[in-house]
Amino acid sequence: MHLSAAGHDVGVADNFLRRQMVMEVGSDSLTPVQTLHERVRAWRDLSGTELDLFVGNLVDAAFVEDIFKSFRPDAVIHYAEQPSAPYSMIDRKHAVGTTRNNVEGTLNVLYALRDIAPETHLVKLGTMGEYGTPDIDIEEGYIEIAHKGRKDTLPFPKLPGSMYHLSKVHDSHNLHFACRIWGLRATDLNQGVVYGIRTEETELDERLCTRFDYDEVFGTVLNRFCVQAVVGHPLTVYGKGGQTRGFLNIIDTLQCVRLAVEHPAERGEFRVFNQFTEQFSVRDLATLVARTAEDLGINVVTEHVPDPRIEAEEHHYHATHTKLLELGLRPHLLTGEVVSHLIQTVQRHKDRILRDPIMPKTKWDPRS
Amino acid sequence: MHLSAAGHDVGVADNFLRRQMVMEVGSDSLTPVQTLHERVRAWRDLSGTELDLFVGNLVDAAFVEDIFKSFRPDAVIHYAEQPSAPYSMIDRKHAVGTTRNNVEGTLNVLYALRDIAPETHLVKLGTMGEYGTPDIDIEEGYIEIAHKGRKDTLPFPKLPGSMYHLSKVHDSHNLHFACRIWGLRATDLNQGVVYGIRTEETELDERLCTRFDYDEVFGTVLNRFCVQAVVGHPLTVYGKGGQTRGFLNIIDTLQCVRLAVEHPAERGEFRVFNQFTEQFSVRDLATLVARTAEDLGINVVTEHVPDPRIEAEEHHYHATHTKLLELGLRPHLLTGEVVSHLIQTVQRHKDRILRDPIMPKTKWDPRS
Repeated sequence: MHLSAAGHDVGVADNFLRRQMVMEVGSDSLTPVQTLHERVRAWRDLSGTELDLFVGNLVDAAFVEDIFKSFRPDAVIHYAEQPSAPYSMIDRKHAVGTTRNNVEGTLNVLYALRDIAPETHLVKLGTMGEYGTPDIDIEEGYIEIAHKGRKDTLPFPKLPGSMYHLSKVHDSHNLHFACRIWGLRATDLNQGVVYGIRTEETELDERLCTRFDYDEVFGTVLNRFCVQAVVGHPLTVYGKGGQTRGFLNIIDTLQCVRLAVEHPAERGEFRVFNQFTEQFSVRDLATLVARTAEDLGINVVTEHVPDPRIEAEEHHYHATHTKLLELGLRPHLLTGEVVSHLIQTVQRHKDRILRDPIMPKTKWDPRS
Repeated sequence: MHLSAAGHDVGVADNFLRRQMVMEVGSDSLTPVQTLHERVRAWRDLSGTELDLFVGNLVDAAFVEDIFKSFRPDAVIHYAEQPSAPYSMIDRKHAVGTTRNNVEGTLNVLYALRDIAPETHLVKLGTMGEYGTPDIDIEEGYIEIAHKGRKDTLPFPKLPGSMYHLSKVHDSHNLHFACRIWGLRATDLNQGVVYGIRTEETELDERLCTRFDYDEVFGTVLNRFCVQAVVGHPLTVYGKGGQTRGFLNIIDTLQCVRLAVEHPAERGEFRVFNQFTEQFSVRDLATLVARTAEDLGINVVTEHVPDPRIEAEEHHYHATHTKLLELGLRPHLLTGEVVSHLIQTVQRHKDRILRDPIMPKTKWDPRS
């Protein structure tokens, strides 16, 4: 919708995997997200613009090739992956399923680009989680290394923390190869944790609202804290809460994707942007939500629960993120006002909240 | 056979994928390699030792779990991957097939280790090709990076040069994760290019001979040059021939695997060994084979053919390889005598040589 509003002709492909997986884990979107067909119809009613709709699976190469042949895109925004770290850690089957879905889907896109549309720019959703938490500053995709009297700029080493994050690291290597060997052009958006729900487009009509997940498997931390505040559940900080990550508002996600599309990579270039605007620790966020909730008259308790993940709970974290700013990103920062609006939106949908899927059940090591 | 001769109880699992793929590309082993069942019988006849035999596919998780439950290994030597770079570059289907076979097979092994045999040491065949040809010296798996006033030792950045090499990079990340998160123990043997055919065990009986591939898809360069010399085909140097890699004798491969098994990694340790003994350029090897062949009365012409791969044809290359030497590896270097014996072995099987599969057909970029 954002790209369509900006004047681009847009087609969308989906196999509704996310909806299926959310059902599988017994959860649901806080917001009453409509079917994709209904959202496309609503967008047509409001904007007079028809989005092309392709229903199918990227793991099916013929489906991918058909889209490229019929739609002939100038750019592909590839978000079609299993996006949850806990989901990928449920068991072997979910790990293999995540790997197959993400890696093979992306390979099919790369081959379709090579054989059908080699000029087309691939904008791929990566994750800041590919880097893990190294004890040096994180750069944007590459790092200059001086070693034994020589120097080279090489891919930044990766320490992914889940099978999902691993699948994204595999994708990054595959994309880099496709650019080096076949001369494709790609931008990897190593995105931080997204929060929020409101964009210019979703505000136009209730039917356009986007999904909002808050459960332990698909929810992100700030969303989950807001839901916990509203239902009177303690804010569940995993372990010490010193886990620090990059965060961004959903509005800025859209800006970043548009900036990447409108400033394509060169042929042969594999460009990596770290896509976030601010760093917070989980502890910082709990404090911010608690303070804001109290301003709204909600009493909040914060609880440190055993960390279901195996990760550093206190660590160095400093990641560079200047490339999107240089392209013109204007950040929407995480103010009390933003959190306040988020909590109020959650309150509006309070009757839809499911309490059972909130607490962490998926352990990184089931033997622990 | 080598481990059995050294006193270990050995089981072997195979799905004969290599044999099937070699048939697919229209080639055959130079040596008349027997069926695995026949080789197991021959070994029993000679040594009095029965090797356990499991026929099945590692991509089938139930097969993997059954082996772990019935055999209860102390160490797993995982060589069960699609091993050819050109095969992986034939087309999309072969790329996806290679990825699926290698990555999913290895994931199944990792989960079986976690759930059934967490003390078991995984010895995994990697490849020096994971590193590509960076402009700095290559270290053994990790590199200390000083950056903006801080330091960390991180995975050595990878620049794999084919879909096959990519699959091995994916494996390395998955193994590292399994050791970090689940406390498994693993050794990645980043092997150079293997040459030769004769080991202590294969010399015992013709029925024990190992395969020897020389075609463009499964053959390695020194083997191919020896076959070309014997059939009067020019030695086909791809491009300038400055491509430099690590090499090792098949005898040293066996030594390295045994050393890794007999000196296991610690729990939680992901150990990486660069497994080769000498570096050569393709040009160096052509010169060595030509000179040796001439000593045997064979006239040899060397021809530079267009490189079917997309790779640097002249580059810096210096890779560390001290860890296996420290464990006791005694290298068998590539002397004129070794090449001479290799050429004579090829001569003995001359009537089996197929000329058609020798010349490169598989291009890294089919549009070129």
